[in-house]
This record gives sequence, C-alpha cells and structure tokens, in this order.
Amino acid sequence: MTIYDFPVGPYPTRVRIAVAEKQLQSQVQFVMVDLYQGEHKRPEFMAEKNYSGTLPVLELSDGLCLAECTAITEYLDALDGEPTLTGRTAREKGVIHMMSKRAELELLDAISVYFHHATPGLGPEVELYQNQEWGLRQRDKALRGMHYFNAVLQRQPYVAGSAFSMADITVIGGMVFAAIVKLEVPAECTHLLAWYARMLERPSVRSQPAFA
Amino acid sequence: MTIYDFPVGPYPTRVRIAVAEKQLQSQVQFVMVDLYQGEHKRPEFMAEKNYSGTLPVLELSDGLCLAECTAITEYLDALDGEPTLTGRTAREKGVIHMMSKRAELELLDAISVYFHHATPGLGPEVELYQNQEWGLRQRDKALRGMHYFNAVLQRQPYVAGSAFSMADITVIGGMVFAAIVKLEVPAECTHLLAWYARMLERPSVRSQPAFA
Repeated sequence: MTIYDFPVGPYPTRVRIAVAEKQLQSQVQFVMVDLYQGEHKRPEFMAEKNYSGTLPVLELSDGLCLAECTAITEYLDALDGEPTLTGRTAREKGVIHMMSKRAELELLDAISVYFHHATPGLGPEVELYQNQEWGLRQRDKALRGMHYFNAVLQRQPYVAGSAFSMADITVIGGMVFAAIVKLEVPAECTHLLAWYARMLERPSVRSQPAFA
Repeated sequence: MTIYDFPVGPYPTRVRIAVAEKQLQSQVQFVMVDLYQGEHKRPEFMAEKNYSGTLPVLELSDGLCLAECTAITEYLDALDGEPTLTGRTAREKGVIHMMSKRAELELLDAISVYFHHATPGLGPEVELYQNQEWGLRQRDKALRGMHYFNAVLQRQPYVAGSAFSMADITVIGGMVFAAIVKLEVPAECTHLLAWYARMLERPSVRSQPAFA
C-alpha cells in the first residue's frame, strides 16, 4: 500500500496513527506530497488520486485510491488485527462514527477552515481564495468545540466511551492543528488536556512526525 | 427507536431511506422537529439530543442519541438484515465511506451551505448569521460536483460501484436539496440524471415525503 502523505499534517497524522495502531507500518510506503507547493491541488493529482485535492490518500496495489480519513480508517480496520478502531457492535459503530464526525465538524475541520481562510495558510500561491470572516467564525466554533470535548472527557476516559477508537484519533488531529495555528486550549479544559497527555503516551501517537 | 425528523429534509431523507432499505419502519417512531421554527437550535435540543443542532437524531430505548447520518446508517446497517449499505469487505467499506463523504463535501453539504448562507434559508429568525459570498462559492462547488458524479456514473451503475449503498443515499440527499434550492442539474449530466431516475424507482426512495 502507498500513502500519499505530508508527515506533519493533521489529517495525514490521523491515518498514520491508525496504521501504527493496526501495526501495518511494514506494509505501507509513504510518498511525500508537498502541501506548501500545492502539489495536492495539481490537476493530475486531483484526476488520478483524489478529486477533492486533499491528503492523505491510500493507494492499493491494484491502483484503487481511497481518500478521506474515515474511509481509509474503515479500510485499515477491516483488515485483520487488533485493536478495533471503528467498533464491533452496532452501538459502538454508531457512537464512534458520531463522535469522530463531531470532532471533524466542531474542532478539526473548523480549525482547518480558520487556517486556510483567516491566516496565511499554505501561502498566497496555494490559498487562491480566502474568506476571513468565515475563517474567524470557525476559529470561535473550534474553541467552543474544545469545551464540548472537555465535558465529554470529564465523564468518560475516551472520546467515544470506555475504549480508544477512531474518534480519539480525530480529536488528536484537531489538537495537532490547534498547535499549528497557535490556538491554545483554554486552561479550564483540564479533562481535555489530561486526555491529550495520555494520548501522547501511546506509541502510535508519540512516534508521529507531528510530535517530533 | 425514535428518530427526530423533518420529513422532507434532505438529511432526514437519507436516514429514512436507510430505515426503509433495512425494513425497520415498524421499529421506528418518527418525531417531528420543526426546522423552520428553529426547534433544532433550541438549547434543550442541543444539550439533550445533538450538540451540533442538526437533524436527524436516532434515540435508542435507553436514551442514547446518535446524530450524523453516516453514524446512524452504520448503526442501522450493523443490526441484522439485508441489504448491506456500508459494505462487507475492507475494500467495499473504504470505497463506500469515501464516496459518501465525497457526496457530502462536493454536493450535499455544499448545497446546504448555499441554502443557509446565500438564500433566505430557514428564515431570519433561524439564520442568525449569513455569509453570502461563501454560500455562492459552495453553490458553484456543488455544480462541479454534479459533473463529477456524472462522470462516476458513466463508468459504473452505482455511486460506489456495482451495488446500491450508503453512497447512493448521500447523493440522493444532494439531489433532494438541489431541488429545494432550485439548483438545476445541468442537462449534459445525462448519466447522473439516468441514475437518479432509477433511484426514484426504488420503493425505499419513492415512498419518502420528499418526493410526495
């Protein structure tokens, strides 16, 4: 398998953690796509690898390209091996998918929009359109999201309940992006911060280039 | 099970189709939440049912609330019964999740942003903030998305390949929302239009209030 990757990127980090959790590193070749050169927005990349022009993309040996972190995680998780990242029972699957999507909507994707629209982002040659007002709104949404996940982690040890899952990985992606844009986690979010400290102790997480 | 619902809404229609495909109608009670009255944005709804303030929400008998269409579909699909909407093999799961997410990004969610930001949307008492420029950009993105899915459906009978899946349901949601905002499918998208005509022949689809 080949993963088109930008090693310190928040979204690529999600899939890198999933690969490490599933202990599939030896089966994956990582190929660097330079976001700051806009390589992910080039017509040939979008035509051949991912219509949406985002990273990461997982390419299988027969040429099938899978984009979107949730889809790639579903694929990797359905291969053999422990732990299970996307749930076993109907209830686990439902909760994990809900919380992972919520982590995108309310935290990670919101910070991404802030980065691309209300900061210099990837630079003027890549950020061809910016909507600053929209970007700033999304930053505020992400700050509210931090309080929401703090409340979740006050009542349970992991984002989707009692076990580590894809939902934790998505919130970790949000925390990675928050650090890049210097969006500080409010000090009163002690449960979110304590959870994050625990996540950074996991080998699958702390080994990532984003934390080097 | 209870589903908090707005019967003609594009997102509720996605879950309604999934319920019908799985033949679970007799196990579900639908409760109307009036979007035009902003009932989905009331503090008690957001605190008790869905932090993100969107429909639909599936509530289980023990009170667990599942939001987000993909999460609800994963839950319903993991209960017993045919057909399978989210895939059996790793490859099927990966492709279905990718194409469903792509249908959100490039079509359904883009039209939703257009509706809420560049049209009167749900009315001035619900649409408390609008960003018209962003909304218009998303309309143009959705039109490009129609051409993308037209190309997909030129080479295969269903959005994720050779079988009906959650990805078809998500594109159907996009087509429902396009009709609401009067965003016409370009006439040259003949493969998308032919696929949609076939979808509207499915009992699970044509029985929905959105098509009454």
